[in-house]
Amino acid sequence: MGEFSLPIKVYIEDTDAGGIVYHANYLKFMERSRTEYLATFGFDKPATLDDGLLLVVHSMNIEFRSAARLGDMLQATTEVLSAKRSYVIFEQQVRHNQQLLCRAEVKIACVHAESMKPTAMPEVMQKSLKSAQN
Amino acid sequence: MGEFSLPIKVYIEDTDAGGIVYHANYLKFMERSRTEYLATFGFDKPATLDDGLLLVVHSMNIEFRSAARLGDMLQATTEVLSAKRSYVIFEQQVRHNQQLLCRAEVKIACVHAESMKPTAMPEVMQKSLKSAQN
Amino acid sequence: MGEFSLPIKVYIEDTDAGGIVYHANYLKFMERSRTEYLATFGFDKPATLDDGLLLVVHSMNIEFRSAARLGDMLQATTEVLSAKRSYVIFEQQVRHNQQLLCRAEVKIACVHAESMKPTAMPEVMQKSLKSAQN
Amino acid sequence: MGEFSLPIKVYIEDTDAGGIVYHANYLKFMERSRTEYLATFGFDKPATLDDGLLLVVHSMNIEFRSAARLGDMLQATTEVLSAKRSYVIFEQQVRHNQQLLCRAEVKIACVHAESMKPTAMPEVMQKSLKSAQN
Repeated sequence: MGEFSLPIKVYIEDTDAGGIVYHANYLKFMERSRTEYLATFGFDKPATLDDGLLLVVHSMNIEFRSAARLGDMLQATTEVLSAKRSYVIFEQQVRHNQQLLCRAEVKIACVHAESMKPTAMPEVMQKSLKSAQN
Repeated sequence: MGEFSLPIKVYIEDTDAGGIVYHANYLKFMERSRTEYLATFGFDKPATLDDGLLLVVHSMNIEFRSAARLGDMLQATTEVLSAKRSYVIFEQQVRHNQQLLCRAEVKIACVHAESMKPTAMPEVMQKSLKSAQN
Repeated sequence: MGEFSLPIKVYIEDTDAGGIVYHANYLKFMERSRTEYLATFGFDKPATLDDGLLLVVHSMNIEFRSAARLGDMLQATTEVLSAKRSYVIFEQQVRHNQQLLCRAEVKIACVHAESMKPTAMPEVMQKSLKSAQN
Repeated sequence: MGEFSLPIKVYIEDTDAGGIVYHANYLKFMERSRTEYLATFGFDKPATLDDGLLLVVHSMNIEFRSAARLGDMLQATTEVLSAKRSYVIFEQQVRHNQQLLCRAEVKIACVHAESMKPTAMPEVMQKSLKSAQN
């Protein structure tokens, strides 16, 4: 399926006293993109799945290359690098006018909401993500 | 009981590109102060009470008088103005070196978590808040 | 001009452990709506105007009527109640499927960035807001 | 110098609808710890240094092992792994009762505020961080 891209505008809430987007907020932008990407497969509210399952961020490697500023229109992209039974690894980028601002490899795992133990994703989600794998 | 005061330091996460604390973040500071104030009576996690009850912010009148900046050590105060069966009105202030930065009258209501309908607070909480009323 | 309305989706970042949108985040939604409303007049980055001016939130009366939840598509509206030389009062609402979740009267003042003292808004902004007054 | 540790309480603002701390908020906790760690050397407001310099997050590898919940008292630790002329790498952890919740290797770079280009840290900061290196 290639790359999914979500447009995101930078509001004053996203910035800090350095005059740039606060670094932790790129993680919000990336999660919004993942959420909308999963919605293209029909998965709503992926952060709180049915049947007592949660999708959680297991780990990420993130690089901040350049800074976004107030009013910028960004693109937050999502692509499946690797889809497995109980987790998926996404390549995610935040860009401004084709310039890469921030990129991350993000591992998302499926867990039981109560125990937070890893478990298989719903089968239809596994299939969708595997079919999207590059 | 008079006024309860919680010290709060301003971190970069709290600021915006205007170089000052982002206005909505004063509401976070006030909630931290209310939380610690209620903890002095033994009420932990007041935002998610037991028995399917929630304490929610019903309404507030808030004035932003002056701006806090990065690194400021603030005081966030809480005082009971009026305590009733199903709600309580707090006077809350955020100050820096005795200077008033922000003040609000905040009405907190007890509701059922499912229906979000108003209901009586647990009796021991009603009593504690009434005894603290000025 | 009547009412301006901005669609806003609720992401997991906006929610809290009560399962609903965290109350302070409605202030973010309202500021996004004001920002886009002012952009319709050609005012970009209204929170950090040129010439050392800032638009700041002076005060607000806000009521939280009902709660938004994860995945909800909201409307955040802005309307000019009263436009003056150095401030403007907006009526703002957040709705879900026509249901009012949150409303506020928000007074926005123009100040000098350094002194934070009130001052006249740029004339073209004054005119635009007065023409939009109901 | 070993490990620096900052106590941090989890408030409702930090949580999400999954009932746990929102993942991006661990980055805030880590930055609070770095800020207080640098303050022990006398560096205030490290995110906005004098002379037009900024300390920015260059990159991080972060693992989320277990989840913090409302009301938890956490420890956010900072330790210098490697200190160089224009950057420093910290090991950072967030723990609850000795249990590791989240850990990260965080590379902080010194840049010019205008150009965002890398540059040497103030010499006294370089010295302090090198002396703290493990």
